[in-house]
Amino acid sequence: MDRRSFNRRMLVGGAVATVGVTSLSAMASDSAADAPRAVADPPKTAPAGGEVRRIKMYAEKLPDGQMGYGLEKGKASIPGPLLELNEGDTLHVEFENTTDVDVSLHVHGMDYEISSDGTKHTKSQVAPGGKRTYTWRTHAPGRRKDGTWRPGTAGYWHYHDHVVGTEHGTGGVRKGLYGAVIVRRKGDILPDQTCVIVFNDMMINNKPAHSGPDFEATVGDRVEFVSITHGEYYHTFHIHGHRWADNRTGLLTGPDDPSQVLDDKITGPGDSFGFQVIAGEGVGAGAWMYHCHVQSHSDMGMVGLFLVKKPDGTIPDYEPHHPHGAKGDGGAKGGSEAKGGSEAKGDAGAKGAGSDHAHH
Amino acid sequence: MDRRSFNRRMLVGGAVATVGVTSLSAMASDSAADAPRAVADPPKTAPAGGEVRRIKMYAEKLPDGQMGYGLEKGKASIPGPLLELNEGDTLHVEFENTTDVDVSLHVHGMDYEISSDGTKHTKSQVAPGGKRTYTWRTHAPGRRKDGTWRPGTAGYWHYHDHVVGTEHGTGGVRKGLYGAVIVRRKGDILPDQTCVIVFNDMMINNKPAHSGPDFEATVGDRVEFVSITHGEYYHTFHIHGHRWADNRTGLLTGPDDPSQVLDDKITGPGDSFGFQVIAGEGVGAGAWMYHCHVQSHSDMGMVGLFLVKKPDGTIPDYEPHHPHGAKGDGGAKGGSEAKGGSEAKGDAGAKGAGSDHAHH
Amino acid sequence: MDRRSFNRRMLVGGAVATVGVTSLSAMASDSAADAPRAVADPPKTAPAGGEVRRIKMYAEKLPDGQMGYGLEKGKASIPGPLLELNEGDTLHVEFENTTDVDVSLHVHGMDYEISSDGTKHTKSQVAPGGKRTYTWRTHAPGRRKDGTWRPGTAGYWHYHDHVVGTEHGTGGVRKGLYGAVIVRRKGDILPDQTCVIVFNDMMINNKPAHSGPDFEATVGDRVEFVSITHGEYYHTFHIHGHRWADNRTGLLTGPDDPSQVLDDKITGPGDSFGFQVIAGEGVGAGAWMYHCHVQSHSDMGMVGLFLVKKPDGTIPDYEPHHPHGAKGDGGAKGGSEAKGGSEAKGDAGAKGAGSDHAHH
Repeated sequence: MDRRSFNRRMLVGGAVATVGVTSLSAMASDSAADAPRAVADPPKTAPAGGEVRRIKMYAEKLPDGQMGYGLEKGKASIPGPLLELNEGDTLHVEFENTTDVDVSLHVHGMDYEISSDGTKHTKSQVAPGGKRTYTWRTHAPGRRKDGTWRPGTAGYWHYHDHVVGTEHGTGGVRKGLYGAVIVRRKGDILPDQTCVIVFNDMMINNKPAHSGPDFEATVGDRVEFVSITHGEYYHTFHIHGHRWADNRTGLLTGPDDPSQVLDDKITGPGDSFGFQVIAGEGVGAGAWMYHCHVQSHSDMGMVGLFLVKKPDGTIPDYEPHHPHGAKGDGGAKGGSEAKGGSEAKGDAGAKGAGSDHAHH
Repeated sequence: MDRRSFNRRMLVGGAVATVGVTSLSAMASDSAADAPRAVADPPKTAPAGGEVRRIKMYAEKLPDGQMGYGLEKGKASIPGPLLELNEGDTLHVEFENTTDVDVSLHVHGMDYEISSDGTKHTKSQVAPGGKRTYTWRTHAPGRRKDGTWRPGTAGYWHYHDHVVGTEHGTGGVRKGLYGAVIVRRKGDILPDQTCVIVFNDMMINNKPAHSGPDFEATVGDRVEFVSITHGEYYHTFHIHGHRWADNRTGLLTGPDDPSQVLDDKITGPGDSFGFQVIAGEGVGAGAWMYHCHVQSHSDMGMVGLFLVKKPDGTIPDYEPHHPHGAKGDGGAKGGSEAKGGSEAKGDAGAKGAGSDHAHH
Repeated sequence: MDRRSFNRRMLVGGAVATVGVTSLSAMASDSAADAPRAVADPPKTAPAGGEVRRIKMYAEKLPDGQMGYGLEKGKASIPGPLLELNEGDTLHVEFENTTDVDVSLHVHGMDYEISSDGTKHTKSQVAPGGKRTYTWRTHAPGRRKDGTWRPGTAGYWHYHDHVVGTEHGTGGVRKGLYGAVIVRRKGDILPDQTCVIVFNDMMINNKPAHSGPDFEATVGDRVEFVSITHGEYYHTFHIHGHRWADNRTGLLTGPDDPSQVLDDKITGPGDSFGFQVIAGEGVGAGAWMYHCHVQSHSDMGMVGLFLVKKPDGTIPDYEPHHPHGAKGDGGAKGGSEAKGGSEAKGDAGAKGAGSDHAHH
């Protein structure tokens, strides 16, 4: 059993995946020592959902004046925790507002009653010091009684504040109150690592310009990217040396899938999409840039690196810009150390924690 | 026979559906009294086309200085009348310009000869007081002689002026000279109601900021949205609690359809798309916002409500902002009272007027 | 054997297709005399790839202060040469920088090692007077060992400088250092002509406003458009009287393809897509505009004409704006005279040069 399989990816309910500056600083330095993946192993896939899960979520002010969501008090991050569900799951989010202004939790893509909308006109925000449970439901696709197809909830979605600053949460979103939600369909392939990239005005994940975030992987890793856009501007998400299908999963469903394959996609505020790549597939190790392709935006620093290492941990033609080496902020490694883990259970692997667990 | 089935949705040729401030003010107040739909009924579907239809269309100046298209003199609206065709239909639009400037009618998606282009360089605009017949043709998909597939005309399209103010109709579009055209394929599912939402610069349907339009429905209604963008800015169309497939119809074709499911989509001027939702499906009644998700745009009032009522007509957690109650502007109710109805015929239901007609 | 079949479309390796002001000025005047296509002929399709090809590419300063790529010294054009590959091909680009600043060649969509990235942080740019071979590989789709589908390289891609002016090539792209790359899948239908349209800030193909480029075709021609966006702004690509499927090829794969059919699509910098139309299909000859549909952009001159002629060479309702007649800049005609043709081989037609060659 290698180190990774000993760790656990935390899923929501029974398990919670955390993403953020704090949770992943330790992980990044571990990766280099790992053996390359045996991609010949069949990938782990998502199970059927149907569980009722319950988590706590806190809105907090961060020391630098920004704001974040976190699963534990004092652990807020930007982006907030990555939440993963399987179609059929229900998630009760026991939300507590530790700040001194009204905050809410509004989610895209989920099924929720109007009382969980997180908007002022429905009075579903939370006053300072207050609590409220937001309930999100999901469902598998199926035929309606009238014979038509109802789409399932599976997708790359996101949540954000809808009330700080303005009735649309312009202040809250700008300060960092956002995060990703992934809903998987039974059979969806699970990644080894998920990297959440939020283009928020001219920032990525609210970091200062020219400071990443960077993401680390080893050639052969199945890496999932989630692209979310917020704020005022349109952007184009571009990654070097890798590409994806412009459809629900970012993966082709088969040889007849007509989806365009892209490496650059225009997005606007509120948009989200995701995809998986095999790190370095057909191109090898390298410091592969991802950036907004709007020229002034990339020039102003909307750039990060996808650092794909050889099995020996080296990256050709690359000298780290940062004295302390590459950062791994924002990536939820399949086998990363559990954080916020009071709800972690031993069966987290069975929830689809990634192919590491094939080595159990 | 309930009230709705007594009414008729008007289709082009044999029938004309009208959309606008004037046509629907009466309808909105009726809806609350209707019984919920029996969604178990198979939905009505579009028939094969092939008819040759003829309508009149007028360009007019409105009292407030804006401009609009209408099917009768003095009845112009913004957006202009919703036109619906079935693949194979031909529509002759006998256009009359009642204004004091050149106006034209340019359409997207249709088959038309260059003489129906509605542009200055082809001299197909209309002088003040003048008339011109624009002919639009449509076709079903099929194989070409060379074996390749020719796409059909079905889609969510739109028409607009191309000459007022500039050679691209910048002035005419800004003032309201635009409308939606839906072309349906045989077998396409017909909605109970169609809501046309045009993001035109910072306005929705040229209304003042923070004033809707709102759309009413009852839980279980099959509601169709048509999103059109005009003007100068990009936008993102977002709706709370509902979502759609990013494909031709907005509905999944089946379990293997790889289309992404969205609730937020970037659009730019000239773009259009449409989709159908079951009002409140999985989420229930509520005052569901739709808005541009660009933060400054929503803050400036690019917001409306999708008012989904319970069968008893109530909406939970909602207090109408407007003293006169919610507005239903812009929605063409399946069973709404016919307007501009000189061409209405008794067999309008057979033209695919919506599932109401299953109750005949 | 007509004139066209005598000519050869040049493909990369064995053949090189050139696009640009210089290469096509002669061709445009030939087209009018050609007989209309017999579209009943089965179209030529792309063969399987697998060849290793080698071309030279030069970065040059143009007399007007702009910059361009070319296949021969002194022959640089904007856009640069259209490069075509078949999935499985490898292309070695022996790049020479004839300018007085660092230049690079960065490509989208291809498989390349980090040493061919064309970026400063990987030190893969080229100093003034220097040379470097960039190697691009392509692959057909297939199943991975783990059972998942790997997308193929086929697509409408592009290349551009990544270092002039800024670390993102903002200066190089603005001055014209860009071009299209098409990778075809075995069986993909080959066009008679390819028209490359680059929206670069407020210019099309770096031409002055209100000066095209225009493209000529005859009713029945299979014309391919490649849309690429660069620079700072978002745009919407719109063409009158023609439309396409929003998928990999722009053509429907069959009756079950759920792709939306469009005639207007939002794009941002770095985006590219392509499609084929049958010129004048269902609409006939005419001076069909294509333009950015953002109102101020079209008003400022982001407009060109798709000049679709009758077999007798006439265009109804059209008086050329230009004393010297319509221009054909930017289109690579299926049967155009070979340019930069030191590598042209007699079997170029067999490489998929277009349906002209069915008449051999």
